[in-house]
Amino acid sequence: MAQTFEEISPADFFYRNRDIAGFTNPARAIFTAIRELVENSLDAAEQVRIPPDIYVRLILEGETSRGNEVYRLRVEDNGSGIPSRYIPSAFGQVLFGSKYKLKQTRGTFGLGGTMAILYGQITTHKPAKVISSTGGSKIFKYTLMIDIQRNRPIILERKILLNREGWRGTIVEFSLEGDYMRAMPKILEYFKQTAVMNPYANITFVDPRGRLYMFRRATTEMPPPPKETKPHPYGVDVELLQRIIYMTDCNNMIDFLRKHFHRVGENIARKFLKFAEMDEGKNPKELSHEEIVHLARAMKKFPDFLPPDASCLSPLGKELLKTGILKELKPEFVAVCQRKPSTYAGHPFIVEVAIAYGGEIPRKGDFILYRFANRIPLLYDEASDVSFKVIQSINWRRYGVSPDMPIAILVHICSTKVPYKTVGKEFIADRPEVKREILNGIREVARQLQRFLSRRAYVERQKKRLNIFAKYLPKIAEFSTKLAGKEKPPDIKKLLRSVERFGEEI
Amino acid sequence: MAQTFEEISPADFFYRNRDIAGFTNPARAIFTAIRELVENSLDAAEQVRIPPDIYVRLILEGETSRGNEVYRLRVEDNGSGIPSRYIPSAFGQVLFGSKYKLKQTRGTFGLGGTMAILYGQITTHKPAKVISSTGGSKIFKYTLMIDIQRNRPIILERKILLNREGWRGTIVEFSLEGDYMRAMPKILEYFKQTAVMNPYANITFVDPRGRLYMFRRATTEMPPPPKETKPHPYGVDVELLQRIIYMTDCNNMIDFLRKHFHRVGENIARKFLKFAEMDEGKNPKELSHEEIVHLARAMKKFPDFLPPDASCLSPLGKELLKTGILKELKPEFVAVCQRKPSTYAGHPFIVEVAIAYGGEIPRKGDFILYRFANRIPLLYDEASDVSFKVIQSINWRRYGVSPDMPIAILVHICSTKVPYKTVGKEFIADRPEVKREILNGIREVARQLQRFLSRRAYVERQKKRLNIFAKYLPKIAEFSTKLAGKEKPPDIKKLLRSVERFGEEI
Repeated sequence: MAQTFEEISPADFFYRNRDIAGFTNPARAIFTAIRELVENSLDAAEQVRIPPDIYVRLILEGETSRGNEVYRLRVEDNGSGIPSRYIPSAFGQVLFGSKYKLKQTRGTFGLGGTMAILYGQITTHKPAKVISSTGGSKIFKYTLMIDIQRNRPIILERKILLNREGWRGTIVEFSLEGDYMRAMPKILEYFKQTAVMNPYANITFVDPRGRLYMFRRATTEMPPPPKETKPHPYGVDVELLQRIIYMTDCNNMIDFLRKHFHRVGENIARKFLKFAEMDEGKNPKELSHEEIVHLARAMKKFPDFLPPDASCLSPLGKELLKTGILKELKPEFVAVCQRKPSTYAGHPFIVEVAIAYGGEIPRKGDFILYRFANRIPLLYDEASDVSFKVIQSINWRRYGVSPDMPIAILVHICSTKVPYKTVGKEFIADRPEVKREILNGIREVARQLQRFLSRRAYVERQKKRLNIFAKYLPKIAEFSTKLAGKEKPPDIKKLLRSVERFGEEI
Repeated sequence: MAQTFEEISPADFFYRNRDIAGFTNPARAIFTAIRELVENSLDAAEQVRIPPDIYVRLILEGETSRGNEVYRLRVEDNGSGIPSRYIPSAFGQVLFGSKYKLKQTRGTFGLGGTMAILYGQITTHKPAKVISSTGGSKIFKYTLMIDIQRNRPIILERKILLNREGWRGTIVEFSLEGDYMRAMPKILEYFKQTAVMNPYANITFVDPRGRLYMFRRATTEMPPPPKETKPHPYGVDVELLQRIIYMTDCNNMIDFLRKHFHRVGENIARKFLKFAEMDEGKNPKELSHEEIVHLARAMKKFPDFLPPDASCLSPLGKELLKTGILKELKPEFVAVCQRKPSTYAGHPFIVEVAIAYGGEIPRKGDFILYRFANRIPLLYDEASDVSFKVIQSINWRRYGVSPDMPIAILVHICSTKVPYKTVGKEFIADRPEVKREILNGIREVARQLQRFLSRRAYVERQKKRLNIFAKYLPKIAEFSTKLAGKEKPPDIKKLLRSVERFGEEI
């Protein structure tokens, strides 16, 4: 009957609950591993403002056990590289990552890369290799395993090479059990959608059958990078307040508010302190627990804080979005729209929406939905996603559109905090503010599509009409000429042209 | 451009990503907090084989900020109690819990209770109170907060009281921000479904308006408790093998396999070692990395391991399931079915299915689906759940059933490892083995419902027919009597009875 208790390391937690991080089965695991590493690579390249060059290679390595193969995965990038002393922990310790900053990033959880390596270790028990340089005179090469129970990296080998070529980037290579044949459609779809959303990236994928998939960049222009931002007062809780108070060097409330919170100036700070009935000269370090709680509550209630500005966000932008869609989906028509920045719970976000019609877009009997968050494609659990629900709720007949048309809808949300519902980053929660922006965005592009379709229908009708004119006018002219006993028929070109012009004017 | 890196404590991770643990918004948070604590209480009572008495009280405590109220939540149980020295960590440290054992439990993640208290602290910054006794001479009373950055409990106060009454159990009380009005339907539904699945429990809930909801036990009989089990060879990976090798005191492979693995006897151990081409006398502590990997692979491939037995599982059982359904749902008809134990990836599981018809079951235009896993009701994201998909896939007309009938379907899966897809325990992943069992279970109860419905339709028809006989036979008898010039009409009761009997025989 005696109970015993124990502490579990984060690595152990995710080892036991790997479903949560997207490593549900061999097919899903190989997809998730590729995706996590590719996203780290994209982030690393964007961090140094370089169009990403990413090379992914998957080799069938070993014997099959119960239908599952062992693969060797290698991902190379030209990104920032990782300082040598951080390499072991960055890939050998769960919940260790680049310092948490309030800005838009792909990786949210400090989990992905290490989880992939952890999964590889569990299933193959082979060490991982990480090679990286920040562009200095040295290249560092580590051979690593993870001590899961202690959540610490085990360094098996460390080599230092001379960096004669001035190479910068990171290479990760490890073995894992997987089922590529089952995962293949999702993996290829993932690369394609990543290419849509990152039209400035070169992505090369060599699959286990030796097939080469290349997604070439269509531009070297990159969206402006996201900036780090301060927390907005509406999103602050007691814990965060305490942390800021702990590290602040301000000794009065006015300075404290101005320095540490987003869009709070002296004027607003004063108004707010009056509203909160707090002393302007109070030293924040001397606030009692009760006062901190009071402060946090007052921040949520004060109506006059400015809305967060979106300079910390990095949406793709209308032009790049269009470029990506035209490059990969090759539609006949595309309309894109970027909504104004909005917020939920103090977190700024921007929704971008596109609708593409015809061309190489297939007819599937239903709209094709491409979902993205902070430029990551979301491929699983579509039916639980807020965008899917929004599309279902729209009365499409109003836009002269039906699900059997070749239509793809793309929704991109970027935010300092994407409201994922799972660590596996599969779908986005139903926040009403997010829902509204998606709905309005889709309506906007749907109207553009409607105009395109009705204009096209009009032009078709006009063409038909012109064809009729072109066919019969000469005959009528000939007949009239004969009837009038004249020799030369009148010039009907002018007449035809006037009808044409009328069509073009619409 | 310089990157900085840091380690994140598990408490900090879940603080930043609380959506993942089910604390998405104030309504959801209050639901999740109640649920996590109630489940801990049910587990604690079942651990000491006592029918649970659980008392939950929610009081509106404080001022509202932006429409959100602050509540005080108190949950009391008559369970095992927690040894004094473990109380602070059990409620003040994320990823600390009763020692991980391979058996069926409600809580899976060592997260729930502490996450609820953590959320309360973030939103109200008030300490939590925990009072517990294991039934000895003392009662321990702690006042606690959580150091989130270090993931350690902070003990503000510790009191020892004399346990004169021999009380055993745990009381947890803390404050949290919430939105009870929005959460109410889900909370009440949660209690109702919990009462269906735990018909031996008394559950009392006093809501903030002072309303009392009582779910009285209908039986004191409890299902046999789940037993701890050893890992099945098919579910073993390299990491687990290493851990077992580290702690084993066996010095040869035969003993090693027999002692540490589920359903492996001497005979099977020998056969397996031959299959794996391993030496029977080898000391497991001397296995090289390569040999451990080879062993893990061979375990997955060897075809002759016995399937896991299900004694480690604790399904509710047909009788108790029926009791629970009749007590709470009050249907006209119910059919229950317990499938034989099955396995996925080495984890045993049992599926229980019930179908209930008529009575107080409402017509909703669609089947009502009640989903349970290890006796926990699952209330969110129904459309992503495997059971929902199975129900959608069935051709119900074959069973003479349509969605507009008043029908509820209940699916319960119990396993040492429920394949949840989220920490919030919302829905179950599509494992093919699980899917098949659910499908077969539903088919079985659907056939029983079909028989019931067609029998009922038959009886109705017979009743109508009898009514006609009963109405006209006397007249015919009278007429025939007159026609024959007799005085006394023949006895038609016998005739009527023979027709009736015919009806009953079917």
